[in-house]
Amino acid sequence: MAVYTEISDDDLSALMAEYDIGGVMSCKGIAEGVENSNYLLRTDKGQFFLTLYEKRVKEGDLPFFLGLMDHLSLKGVRCPVPIRGRDGVILRRVAGRPAAIVSFVDGVSVRNPGVSHCGQLGQALAGLHSAGKDFALRRPNALSVDGWRPLVDACLGNADRVRPGLSEELGSELSLLETRWPRHLPEGVIHADLFPDNVHFLGGKLSGLIDFYFACDDFLAYDLAVCLNAWCFEADGAYNLTKGRALLREYCADRTLTAAEVAAFPLLCRGAAFRFLLTRLYDWLNQVPGALVKPKDPLEYWRKLGFHRAAKGPAAYGLE
Amino acid sequence: MAVYTEISDDDLSALMAEYDIGGVMSCKGIAEGVENSNYLLRTDKGQFFLTLYEKRVKEGDLPFFLGLMDHLSLKGVRCPVPIRGRDGVILRRVAGRPAAIVSFVDGVSVRNPGVSHCGQLGQALAGLHSAGKDFALRRPNALSVDGWRPLVDACLGNADRVRPGLSEELGSELSLLETRWPRHLPEGVIHADLFPDNVHFLGGKLSGLIDFYFACDDFLAYDLAVCLNAWCFEADGAYNLTKGRALLREYCADRTLTAAEVAAFPLLCRGAAFRFLLTRLYDWLNQVPGALVKPKDPLEYWRKLGFHRAAKGPAAYGLE
Repeated sequence: MAVYTEISDDDLSALMAEYDIGGVMSCKGIAEGVENSNYLLRTDKGQFFLTLYEKRVKEGDLPFFLGLMDHLSLKGVRCPVPIRGRDGVILRRVAGRPAAIVSFVDGVSVRNPGVSHCGQLGQALAGLHSAGKDFALRRPNALSVDGWRPLVDACLGNADRVRPGLSEELGSELSLLETRWPRHLPEGVIHADLFPDNVHFLGGKLSGLIDFYFACDDFLAYDLAVCLNAWCFEADGAYNLTKGRALLREYCADRTLTAAEVAAFPLLCRGAAFRFLLTRLYDWLNQVPGALVKPKDPLEYWRKLGFHRAAKGPAAYGLE
Repeated sequence: MAVYTEISDDDLSALMAEYDIGGVMSCKGIAEGVENSNYLLRTDKGQFFLTLYEKRVKEGDLPFFLGLMDHLSLKGVRCPVPIRGRDGVILRRVAGRPAAIVSFVDGVSVRNPGVSHCGQLGQALAGLHSAGKDFALRRPNALSVDGWRPLVDACLGNADRVRPGLSEELGSELSLLETRWPRHLPEGVIHADLFPDNVHFLGGKLSGLIDFYFACDDFLAYDLAVCLNAWCFEADGAYNLTKGRALLREYCADRTLTAAEVAAFPLLCRGAAFRFLLTRLYDWLNQVPGALVKPKDPLEYWRKLGFHRAAKGPAAYGLE
């Protein structure tokens, strides 16, 4: 995170005058969030999250992201609720940046999710997909199969520095995925980045989903594959079948997968692993020395990809 | 800030079990503080500040800093109050780092302090000096006159990149300061870094002083000089006599300056400006590309130094 906009007390006072959410008690810039400048804002009425959107987020996408959170929260999904000013407006400008205030989702994220966490995630993900059904706006997934080749091309020259032979593997894997990627599966709004960082728990119970800035339209089961990769593997790279089963069972309790989704699931997992291998590899190869956020290990996802390439079918995941 | 220790939910749970401050509602790493990893910790009983001390803070100094905050808060100074665990202990270890929890000081810092802010600061600074009188621990000021030559030496080769002729000016200024620096003035515990960042206001009223990690023993009037430099100059480099008078008047209302302090004040201001010119210059010349915190402009303090060099005596500051 090389960009961070500081908000002055005068900017903050001017902003707060637009809202009816109480007087400022404190406002601290927080260290997470690679894409934006985030502030934890506490007033005498509660705790909020103020985001100033930096260049990596397209301003044209903000009505989708904020509209989605607004829509989902009205449907009962526990997620940040965009706060409207006295004028009814959610998105405004602060310190020259687009900015919005959302409610704060209590809880902390878990570093090593257990079976119960995975089950609760499955239930919450199904709830998210169900609540998103009648959301009116659309945003194609720029990081699905059609978006992978430019990233592969950008990494090819240097990928072997991370692991000898990786460039060739990326090329052949991409060709296979492009050929076999499904064309027709149930679609809808997906979170697309529901890692443990983006799920809060309070006293062991899921208290909310956060960070909707990768949300888009895509196959619903692809979102489930992203979660399986992020939640159901152990630190040593092994797939934890018990956690995977808990995730899938609780998801399917709310939304039954179609036969086509079940059949495609191993390939979706493979594609999801490839997508995070690619973006992590890109960030690894283009890292900024001394930046606050250390790039994540791309090879974690290379190992997960290996599991999916060897998987014999849906049963390997606990899908019957 | 290139170092940041992430605290896991398991580390946090283990830590909280040592305290009687309620259950965790949220815990977010915050983006300020160049020296340490800071977390805003909210429980059902209140808001706290959890600090993991990184390498730039000497572990041996922590009993001084934490003991000082404890001492000052007992004397009624509004500052972070170190929280004792059930075992009575303040300083412990988290994620391999020394760590402590302190109370959160409500309020926000002001970017452009007005006359009223300066007056309130003067009053609070005098209160701090008075409350610190009987604090038992000692910590010499490593960044006073004896500590400047190594920094000058480290900058000499490159200072002219920032401003032609700066190396020569640094050398002659240092010689003058070393020769004329006072030897006997009233001493005590000083904050030593009481910039607007480190003072909180709530509804226009000073609500507390924070960040005691430069606190040390030195001339009390030197602390006042640091504040005058940080609070009473305008963005264009001009000294604001009205703000300076408010600061000095309110400070002196609580603690009368001795004749020797008044006589030495212009030189103390000059030394204080030199000290921040030096450390900012050093950080500027040794900056880490892409780091979250942008180094501050050293020449701001070069301009302030120019004012002090030209000042005819205490009256130039509003000291009668």
